[in-house]
Amino acid sequence: MRGLAFSTPIFRQLVEFQSYTYTYILGCEKTRQAVIIDPVDKTADRDIQLLKDFDLNLVYGLNTHVHADHITGTHLLRKAFPSMKSVLSRASGGKADRLVDDGEDVQFGEQKLEVRATPGHTNGCVTYVWHELRRAFTGDSLLVRACGRTDFQEGNAAALIFIGHNYNGILQTSVLEEKNLNPRLTKTEEKFLETMENLHLAHPKQLDEAVPANMKDGEVENSS
Amino acid sequence: MRGLAFSTPIFRQLVEFQSYTYTYILGCEKTRQAVIIDPVDKTADRDIQLLKDFDLNLVYGLNTHVHADHITGTHLLRKAFPSMKSVLSRASGGKADRLVDDGEDVQFGEQKLEVRATPGHTNGCVTYVWHELRRAFTGDSLLVRACGRTDFQEGNAAALIFIGHNYNGILQTSVLEEKNLNPRLTKTEEKFLETMENLHLAHPKQLDEAVPANMKDGEVENSS
Repeated sequence: MRGLAFSTPIFRQLVEFQSYTYTYILGCEKTRQAVIIDPVDKTADRDIQLLKDFDLNLVYGLNTHVHADHITGTHLLRKAFPSMKSVLSRASGGKADRLVDDGEDVQFGEQKLEVRATPGHTNGCVTYVWHELRRAFTGDSLLVRACGRTDFQEGNAAALIFIGHNYNGILQTSVLEEKNLNPRLTKTEEKFLETMENLHLAHPKQLDEAVPANMKDGEVENSS
Repeated sequence: MRGLAFSTPIFRQLVEFQSYTYTYILGCEKTRQAVIIDPVDKTADRDIQLLKDFDLNLVYGLNTHVHADHITGTHLLRKAFPSMKSVLSRASGGKADRLVDDGEDVQFGEQKLEVRATPGHTNGCVTYVWHELRRAFTGDSLLVRACGRTDFQEGNAAALIFIGHNYNGILQTSVLEEKNLNPRLTKTEEKFLETMENLHLAHPKQLDEAVPANMKDGEVENSS
């Protein structure tokens, strides 16, 4: 849609209803360069169509971490956008076109995301911070009123946090909300560790398939 | 959370994962008065908790129309916020604390929504327009790249449209996108009518229960 005269950076939040994963498209309105955060293989066609609708060229496909509950869509998106580079943290131990470290910037046109190391959920978890729009994409490091730890030293009530999942259909939160209301951020370290070690949650259904695939852009190996 | 110093109007989009219904909380940051649009009975507890987290007093529970696929949460929300008034269009034929007509305003603190008649999906369908934030809540009158008609005469690319459902996890759209990309808005009237009469969709599962209940704030009659 070439005529689409967006005058501000382009931003869309999307949901994948099987794993309740939240995916984000961010675009530079001037250069039409875009990134996608935490795409899912099952919704790759939807994401490709939306990027085309918006006349955007996908330059990076970022994952916040090696997901255990779904397979990333980066390998499928690269087929539609051959110059797309996948991005993962170096600390994840995974393979990607670009491995990033804490403090690095990922540029798309005149926009950029800052990489922040937010280990905890996995060693390689990073949060992508979009300073221009005061938005942070935490993946699973911080969820709404739930698990995680955060390194937002300059915590600000106005900054919105876009999380990786929420099983109750809550799509966003803010730093101040979580500081005040997240039961896991208001405990002592000892109590927090005790809670986290005694959650007794079932393993994600797709764990055995998803983790090895997500270590290399979601490509599933043939069992031959 | 009294200390929460929101400096702009409060806005949250929420999802109900069984019927894929999108619910919206809108609040006036100064007076702490709030409204909710298209709440669902199944997520009433979540919505009440969020309103309390934000230190908001719910003054209106609005429905865009008499829903056929889920039961409204207004009767449950009123229990937590006794001064809440339910809102439905007069054209719907339903019962509510306040019946509204095209052009009327619904005020919450210093904020307001304008009611626009957008019949088609049902006779009583209305769209609520939040001019301050350039957002429109269409219910099922207009969906992403799908069904509906719209009376947005002053269509503007910057205005965001917040829809009632999307089964692919797309959370928002814009007037310009739909004008250009919605297959049902780029047809002749004749072709459009032909398409709509030949969709052959199954009736919503909850139709028989939901419609009578939603004609009166979602209260289900006991079969005695």
